[in-house]
Amino acid sequence: MKLFSYWRSLASFRVRIALNLKGVPCDIETIDLLEGDQFRDSYLAVNPQPVVPTLVDGGTALFQSLAIVEYLDETCPEPPLLPADPTGRARVRGIAQIASSDSHPLIVPRIRKYLTEDLELSDEQLAAWIRNWMGAGLAAMEAHLAAGSDTGTFCHGDRPGLADLCLVPQVVGSRMFGCRMDPYPTAMRVFETCMALDAFADAHPTKQPDFPSDA
Amino acid sequence: MKLFSYWRSLASFRVRIALNLKGVPCDIETIDLLEGDQFRDSYLAVNPQPVVPTLVDGGTALFQSLAIVEYLDETCPEPPLLPADPTGRARVRGIAQIASSDSHPLIVPRIRKYLTEDLELSDEQLAAWIRNWMGAGLAAMEAHLAAGSDTGTFCHGDRPGLADLCLVPQVVGSRMFGCRMDPYPTAMRVFETCMALDAFADAHPTKQPDFPSDA
Repeated sequence: MKLFSYWRSLASFRVRIALNLKGVPCDIETIDLLEGDQFRDSYLAVNPQPVVPTLVDGGTALFQSLAIVEYLDETCPEPPLLPADPTGRARVRGIAQIASSDSHPLIVPRIRKYLTEDLELSDEQLAAWIRNWMGAGLAAMEAHLAAGSDTGTFCHGDRPGLADLCLVPQVVGSRMFGCRMDPYPTAMRVFETCMALDAFADAHPTKQPDFPSDA
Repeated sequence: MKLFSYWRSLASFRVRIALNLKGVPCDIETIDLLEGDQFRDSYLAVNPQPVVPTLVDGGTALFQSLAIVEYLDETCPEPPLLPADPTGRARVRGIAQIASSDSHPLIVPRIRKYLTEDLELSDEQLAAWIRNWMGAGLAAMEAHLAAGSDTGTFCHGDRPGLADLCLVPQVVGSRMFGCRMDPYPTAMRVFETCMALDAFADAHPTKQPDFPSDA
């Protein structure tokens, strides 16, 4: 398999964790979003949407991080990333989608570019925007984790899964942009538990081969 | 079952289509997002994140539209909303997530409120923002649909499913905000095919009991 990834992409981070949890070896090809690699014809031939990640498995190019993770879970079932019962699966997918749908899409590079270039936001306004929407996502995840009787060592029970591999990048990204993390004690407890595992730690942006030494 | 929904919510629209395709009867309770119903304690007790939809099935509150749709697909398997093969499932989920993650979250009421109230965007700037991100989503969906050999009468083959129930609200929302639709001929062909089915037509915002007569 080959993953088109960028060290700082939180969506790529999710897929890297899933690959590590499954123990699936994978080549990484860097798509530098800040350099515009995602707009090159060679990449658009793989994924017509200029975003990462894309996972190529044999002749198939898979796109959108959660679709890729579910594919990995269906094709490499052990260890499972979703619980067995429909209610548990819905809870895990719901927590994951708070990050992947309601929070992270608001702060990706193309949005920051539009906000600063087209709408001429100041650095302070941009930082406030990012913290607001990353914080709203964390608050919603915290509310579900703190209230849910299914919350265990991890987001759901005592095995890491789809919700955890969305929570961890959400926390890493929020810290990168200076969010306060003390309002989210349950999320932070789960985050620390995850980061003690190699599958999560090795997928961290700063551990990637394309992480720049001067970043 | 009971769906907390709002007539104009595109995420609620997705779940309404799924319920109709499955033939699952469901009570609807209106959460008027513009009136702030989502912040009432009675709703936050059901879903701690102040968004719609929420589907209550027995004692379980399900949240996030695609998690809800996958739950319905797992608990009421006929007709299936996803193909049987992992590659097809990943394609359908990926197309769905272009709408649910990369496009629609950028134009929901809470974002429009922040753009106009906190950032003081003009009506023109707001309209340009909405058209830009809804258009980018449609362009990505069109690229996958036009290029994909699995595209059939519907987004994937000849049966409506998860990608279609995301595409249709994406088109309806884009038209509502004045997007040009002629760059997306494949998407529009699939849209028209879907809208000829009662399951889609009956789920349309203007057919909802809370659609205001003066809208």
